[in-house]
Amino acid sequence: MNIHNIDGTLADTLGDRRRRLAEIFAAPVILWSGRRSPRNFAANTFPFRASSHFLYFAGLPLENAAICLEAGQLTLFIDDPSPSYALWHGEMPSKEDIAQNIGADAVLPMAELSAHLAGVATIPVQDAATWTEQTQLLDRWVLPERPLAGIDLELAKAIISLRLVHDAGALAELRKAAAVTVEAHKAGMAATMNAKTEADIRAAMESVIIAENMSCAYASIVTTHGEVLHNDRYDNTIKAGDLLLADVGAETTTGWAADVTRTWAFGKFSSTQRDIYDIVLAAHDACIAKVHPGVEYRDLHFLAATTIAQGLVDLGILQGNAEDLVEKDVHALFFPHGIGHLLGLDVHDMEDLGDLAGYEPGRTRSDRFGLGYLRLDRPLRPGMLVTIEPGFYQVPAILNNPEVRTAYQDVVNWERLAQFADVRGIRIEDDVLVTEAGNEVLTAALPTKAEDIEQLVCG
Amino acid sequence: MNIHNIDGTLADTLGDRRRRLAEIFAAPVILWSGRRSPRNFAANTFPFRASSHFLYFAGLPLENAAICLEAGQLTLFIDDPSPSYALWHGEMPSKEDIAQNIGADAVLPMAELSAHLAGVATIPVQDAATWTEQTQLLDRWVLPERPLAGIDLELAKAIISLRLVHDAGALAELRKAAAVTVEAHKAGMAATMNAKTEADIRAAMESVIIAENMSCAYASIVTTHGEVLHNDRYDNTIKAGDLLLADVGAETTTGWAADVTRTWAFGKFSSTQRDIYDIVLAAHDACIAKVHPGVEYRDLHFLAATTIAQGLVDLGILQGNAEDLVEKDVHALFFPHGIGHLLGLDVHDMEDLGDLAGYEPGRTRSDRFGLGYLRLDRPLRPGMLVTIEPGFYQVPAILNNPEVRTAYQDVVNWERLAQFADVRGIRIEDDVLVTEAGNEVLTAALPTKAEDIEQLVCG
Repeated sequence: MNIHNIDGTLADTLGDRRRRLAEIFAAPVILWSGRRSPRNFAANTFPFRASSHFLYFAGLPLENAAICLEAGQLTLFIDDPSPSYALWHGEMPSKEDIAQNIGADAVLPMAELSAHLAGVATIPVQDAATWTEQTQLLDRWVLPERPLAGIDLELAKAIISLRLVHDAGALAELRKAAAVTVEAHKAGMAATMNAKTEADIRAAMESVIIAENMSCAYASIVTTHGEVLHNDRYDNTIKAGDLLLADVGAETTTGWAADVTRTWAFGKFSSTQRDIYDIVLAAHDACIAKVHPGVEYRDLHFLAATTIAQGLVDLGILQGNAEDLVEKDVHALFFPHGIGHLLGLDVHDMEDLGDLAGYEPGRTRSDRFGLGYLRLDRPLRPGMLVTIEPGFYQVPAILNNPEVRTAYQDVVNWERLAQFADVRGIRIEDDVLVTEAGNEVLTAALPTKAEDIEQLVCG
Repeated sequence: MNIHNIDGTLADTLGDRRRRLAEIFAAPVILWSGRRSPRNFAANTFPFRASSHFLYFAGLPLENAAICLEAGQLTLFIDDPSPSYALWHGEMPSKEDIAQNIGADAVLPMAELSAHLAGVATIPVQDAATWTEQTQLLDRWVLPERPLAGIDLELAKAIISLRLVHDAGALAELRKAAAVTVEAHKAGMAATMNAKTEADIRAAMESVIIAENMSCAYASIVTTHGEVLHNDRYDNTIKAGDLLLADVGAETTTGWAADVTRTWAFGKFSSTQRDIYDIVLAAHDACIAKVHPGVEYRDLHFLAATTIAQGLVDLGILQGNAEDLVEKDVHALFFPHGIGHLLGLDVHDMEDLGDLAGYEPGRTRSDRFGLGYLRLDRPLRPGMLVTIEPGFYQVPAILNNPEVRTAYQDVVNWERLAQFADVRGIRIEDDVLVTEAGNEVLTAALPTKAEDIEQLVCG
């Protein structure tokens, strides 16, 4: 853990977050950072990832630590390293140095935590060792998969109201993640013509992230089978005629994420690929043009759906009026997911709290085909960061389903669709900050136009 | 999960392992594969890593599955994917295809597991969801951190007796991991003169592993501060005069690991760096020359210690007779860890079982300085794969300790040592297979001689 390159404004940023929390939440709060999860044995762990709620208020990925927030004051609980720690892991910064860096008012060993638990609210941490400790110390169930209740639910709502709107400290980190992610995608495009497999392109992209001392915010998708939405295989060979869909995002050392998708051809797009690409890009551009305070994010989803439906009508793949087709969920045959989600410390920001963050109070998920996967249904506010990620996919599990083919036989021209067999999956995704004036695309440095992408791929 | 590129001998290899287990262990065995561990929220997980014991007998990294082994028969327990699975994760091979690939005699859904639990032995899996399930289903504590007892302890001993000695199927995978690891190190050396930070070199090395669709078997160490034994920071800049220590190893898709360390200069070694490098290399070569069936691994540790002590006496850093110095643990001031460990499905093979695998029955860890970190104390047998990894480190926590300086004031020439300040840490590590005739270095394609390494670095 390195605290030396943290800029001097961290303590100010964190102090401001604490004071704003204190204004809307009165009870004392304890947030645990979490522990490493074992991989194949206890000493061989996955990389440490601190709880996002801890990171928001403590700023640094401290292992096995906790913070108490009360009336704007910060107490850090952390132990001195064991005597053998320096041999294996190097000198740690002192507890006092860490405390000063994050503006803590006091620093105590973890054993003192038990004397500070009266009436506290908390949020469950993902790793079992930590939620077990939370449960034991607080003498009530604190489980990640259990819906929050009582004082913990009230805390979650208060934290959501802060984390929904990014402050300057958060934006500085989010811009770093976006910039490195843009470079990773450019490296992937540049590596394509010499790549043999998907894994070669993944390596080129992730090595940019590793070289910047960042992590992948989520499991990279780098695939010629973009129709598999969360494809986690990279062993297909790449050949002429393939489309490559890459959904790869960096995460800074203090936990802030980017989430970007581009789709490119091995060389140049075929005319059928280009036709569909331009439809998805039209949906992408139309949505971003509408991102503005007060706009309902759900309306952007329907705007993307209508734009895609209209494009498919124009190509002769769908028949009818675009609005009518969207009302019948016909677009979802090809665009079965939502238009995007919140982005912040988590790639689906605050999804550990279920739909509490993504859905405005009183709203719930739809059971309509496609719309059920919409992760965000709120009016946009300045400071919110969202993804805009329309797509077109030919998913065999959907399109080869005899019931689907019968149900939609009048609106889909299956013979015409068959001419677009070289388009398995296309998605174009950017990270869009809502501003007072409208929006700013944090990942705008990465081209979206087909000809610009072809130039990056072909050199 | 891809079963299509698994070669046709897998079922034979697994059948042989089952039959050998049945010869030495009579009770039925159930081994769980485990589940993904959540990272920052439930849907954003760390990469899946199946339990090594499961992989040994089931061959494939199947998620949330179990196998029953009884009298040489294999029953696979696994569920069909949910209806939405194909949309998000693609078509799974069928249960029946998987069963055929691994030579299972029957395949059943996970819910059937509860009817097959009478008198079974098991080994705890690392992730909490799975050991909780093991504990509940078997109605007794099955906890990774708890010493094994009863039937589970007997099973562990039986599995150890198999996994200690690698069969042809294991060796084929271990050779793949070694070959990719060699290429990763060469890439790191080649990237050095254009690298600005440790992270640049780490990126060059790990991208070779990613491009081969493998994982890192452990957190890479790529550092100018090799004296921090498990350094997990990569943010130091690299400059003339630095040594770079890289301990990086690949793991194949079915879980078999390599573990290799090289140390190189930014350009050419200084004369002081070269002096110490050649001492460590002499220890490395002397140990490997002695790897032979019947040799006590612990004796190799002392051979390395004596070789290093003699080298330091020759340089005037230590004073006295090498054997006497080793008896007084003086070598451990500079070589505080053990000469190596078992290697297989785990980078410290079977360390999830504590010292059961590493230590011959009846032997226990020493409390002598340095020797306490020796992870393997058994006579070598054909088919065992071990690392040989001597090192020299100037650890401030050891060498700046006033008690240490007083205790060793007569044997260490501190003024002479100060002339070697540009040597913070050197380690040279290879993976050595014990053969009937002696040994085979699986990682021999990677040079160890200083001048050969300089050539790879400087081109």
